[in-house]
Amino acid sequence: MALLLLKARMALELPAINRTLDTLLQELPEPTRAAARHTVKAGGKRLRPLLCLLCARLMGAGADEGLYRLACTLEMLHAATLMHDDVIDNAPLRRGNPAVHTVVGNTEAILAGDALLSTANACVAHFGNPRLCEVFARATAETAAGEILELHAMHNPGLEGHEYLAIIRGKTACLIRAACEMGALYAGADERRVAALGAYGEALGMAFQMVDDALDVADEAIIGKPTGGDLREGKLTPPLQLYRSGLDEAQRTDFNAKFASAGFTDEEVASICRKIRDLGLDDRVRDMAQGYLDQGREAITALPESGELDVLLEILTYVRDRKK
Amino acid sequence: MALLLLKARMALELPAINRTLDTLLQELPEPTRAAARHTVKAGGKRLRPLLCLLCARLMGAGADEGLYRLACTLEMLHAATLMHDDVIDNAPLRRGNPAVHTVVGNTEAILAGDALLSTANACVAHFGNPRLCEVFARATAETAAGEILELHAMHNPGLEGHEYLAIIRGKTACLIRAACEMGALYAGADERRVAALGAYGEALGMAFQMVDDALDVADEAIIGKPTGGDLREGKLTPPLQLYRSGLDEAQRTDFNAKFASAGFTDEEVASICRKIRDLGLDDRVRDMAQGYLDQGREAITALPESGELDVLLEILTYVRDRKK
Repeated sequence: MALLLLKARMALELPAINRTLDTLLQELPEPTRAAARHTVKAGGKRLRPLLCLLCARLMGAGADEGLYRLACTLEMLHAATLMHDDVIDNAPLRRGNPAVHTVVGNTEAILAGDALLSTANACVAHFGNPRLCEVFARATAETAAGEILELHAMHNPGLEGHEYLAIIRGKTACLIRAACEMGALYAGADERRVAALGAYGEALGMAFQMVDDALDVADEAIIGKPTGGDLREGKLTPPLQLYRSGLDEAQRTDFNAKFASAGFTDEEVASICRKIRDLGLDDRVRDMAQGYLDQGREAITALPESGELDVLLEILTYVRDRKK
Repeated sequence: MALLLLKARMALELPAINRTLDTLLQELPEPTRAAARHTVKAGGKRLRPLLCLLCARLMGAGADEGLYRLACTLEMLHAATLMHDDVIDNAPLRRGNPAVHTVVGNTEAILAGDALLSTANACVAHFGNPRLCEVFARATAETAAGEILELHAMHNPGLEGHEYLAIIRGKTACLIRAACEMGALYAGADERRVAALGAYGEALGMAFQMVDDALDVADEAIIGKPTGGDLREGKLTPPLQLYRSGLDEAQRTDFNAKFASAGFTDEEVASICRKIRDLGLDDRVRDMAQGYLDQGREAITALPESGELDVLLEILTYVRDRKK
C-alpha cells in the first residue's frame, strides 16, 4: 500500500498549496499573523486541501487560483482548531515543533486561532456561495461539538459504541467531509454528487480515526512511538471497549475503577495493550474501519472515471492496514 | 441624559431579540449549547443587535424574522469573544454571574466559543450576501487582533497615543461598526450609506471605550465599583498617558518602573487616580471622546430623518458624560 498516486499528486500540488497559504496568512490582521503562521507552517500533511482539490477536479473544476484559496481555508480551519486544542491539552509539541502557545502564550494562541478561523470564514464568503459558507461553518461547530462530547466521555467506562461514533464523527470526520463537499460545490456539482463525495469524506474520516485508535494499542517497539495514551487519558476507544466487554465481572469492576480514576500503572497499560493485540481485538477494530472504507468506496463508485477518482480510491486501500 | 428613546426602543425590541437568540442557540450542536446558553443568557445590554436593527430600519428594512436573526448573530459573536476572554483573563464573574469557564471548565468554554462563533458565521452565510459574511468575519478577526495588540502593549509605559487608538479600534469599535454596517447591508443600502453608518458605529465604539477608560480613574465612592484596574494591569489608557506626560523626569522614571512591573501599591493607585481627577485629565479624555462623537454625528447627519435616526443621535449625547 504505497500510496503512489496520492504521493505523486501531493508532490505536484504542495507548492501551490503552500504558496496560497502564505498569501492567505498575509490577509490576517498583522498582530495575529505570527502565531497563525507558526502553526500553519509547522507542517501537516495538507490532506484536507488536497481532498478539496481532488473532489473539485473530479467534478470538472480547473486549476484556478480561486480553487487553491478555497482548499486552503480548510487547512486554516484545521490549524485554528489545533491552536485551541494545544492550549486545551497544554501540549508542549505539535508535529515535533514547540506548540504555538509555548511560544506566544495561551492568550495569543486562543485569539490568533479565532482570527484564523474568522479569516478563513471571510475567505470562503468571498466566493459568494452560501452553501460553501454553511458547510464550512457547520463543520467547525460540529468539530467543537465532537471534542466536547469526547471531554464529557472521558473516564467513563460505560461509554457505548454509538457514543464513540458520534465523538469521532464530530472531532475528525466532519471536517474531512466538508473538504470533499466544498470541492464538489466549488465545481458546481449537483447536490447528489456533493452528497456522494461528502459521504466518501465522512467514511474516510471515521475509518482513519478508528485505525488511529487501533494503533494506540500497538507494540511501541514496532511503531516507534509511545502507545496506550487513550487508556491513560480515559478515552474508551473501540479496542478498549472490546477488551472490557470480554472481562468477567470482577475484572471489569477493577477495570472500571482504574479507568474512571486514571489509575492504571505503566505495567498495566502495557499489559492490557498486549492482551488486546493477542486477542486480535485491534484487528477487529480495523475490520470495523473496513466497513466504513467500503461505504466510502460505494459512495463514489458511480462518479466519472478519472485520475482524481483513482487517487480517492487508492486512499481507501491504505487506511485499514496503515502502521503509523 | 436619560436615553429615553433608546430605553423605549430597547424595551420594545428586547423580547424579540431574546426569543431569536433562544432559537439560534437551538441551532448549535447539542453538546455546545449549555455553555453557549450560559453566556448568552447571562444578560448584556444587547446593544449590538439593537444597533443593527436600528440601522436596517433607518435604511428601510421591515421588522421581519430574518433581520432579527441577523442582528442576533452579533450578540452570538460578542458572547463567543466573552467566553474566550474570560478564559484568558481567568475572570471568576461575568455580569455578576459565574463566568462560563468556572462552570464548565476552560476546555468546554473555548470549544463552545468556537462553535458559537461558527454557528453565527453559518447564520450570516444563510442570507446569501457575501458582503455580510465578509464584514462579520473581518470584525471578528480585527477584534482578536486588537486584543493581541493590547496584550503586547501591557506594562509598556512608552505606549503612544496612536497605538492605544489601534487597540481600542480593534477590541471595541470594529464590532460596533460591523453591527451598523450589517444592518445597512441587510436593508440594501448603497455602499455610501453603509460606510456612513459604519463610520457612526466606529466613532461610537471609540468614544465609548475612551469614556470607559476615563471611568477607570473615577472615585470609587461615586461610581460604586473598584477603579484603577488599568493602572494595576499595565494598560496605558489616555488618562494615564496624560498623567505620565505631566511628570518630571524623576517621577516618570519611578512611574515607568512600577508600571512595567505591576509594582503600584493600592495607596499609589488611589493617589494617582485622585491626582488625575484633580488635574481634570479624565475630563480631557472625555473631550477626546467628544471628538469621536462629533464625527459620529457628522457621519449620519445626511441620513433620512426618522425615529431610528433620533435614537442613534441620542446615544451620542449620552456617551461623553456617562457615569457608569
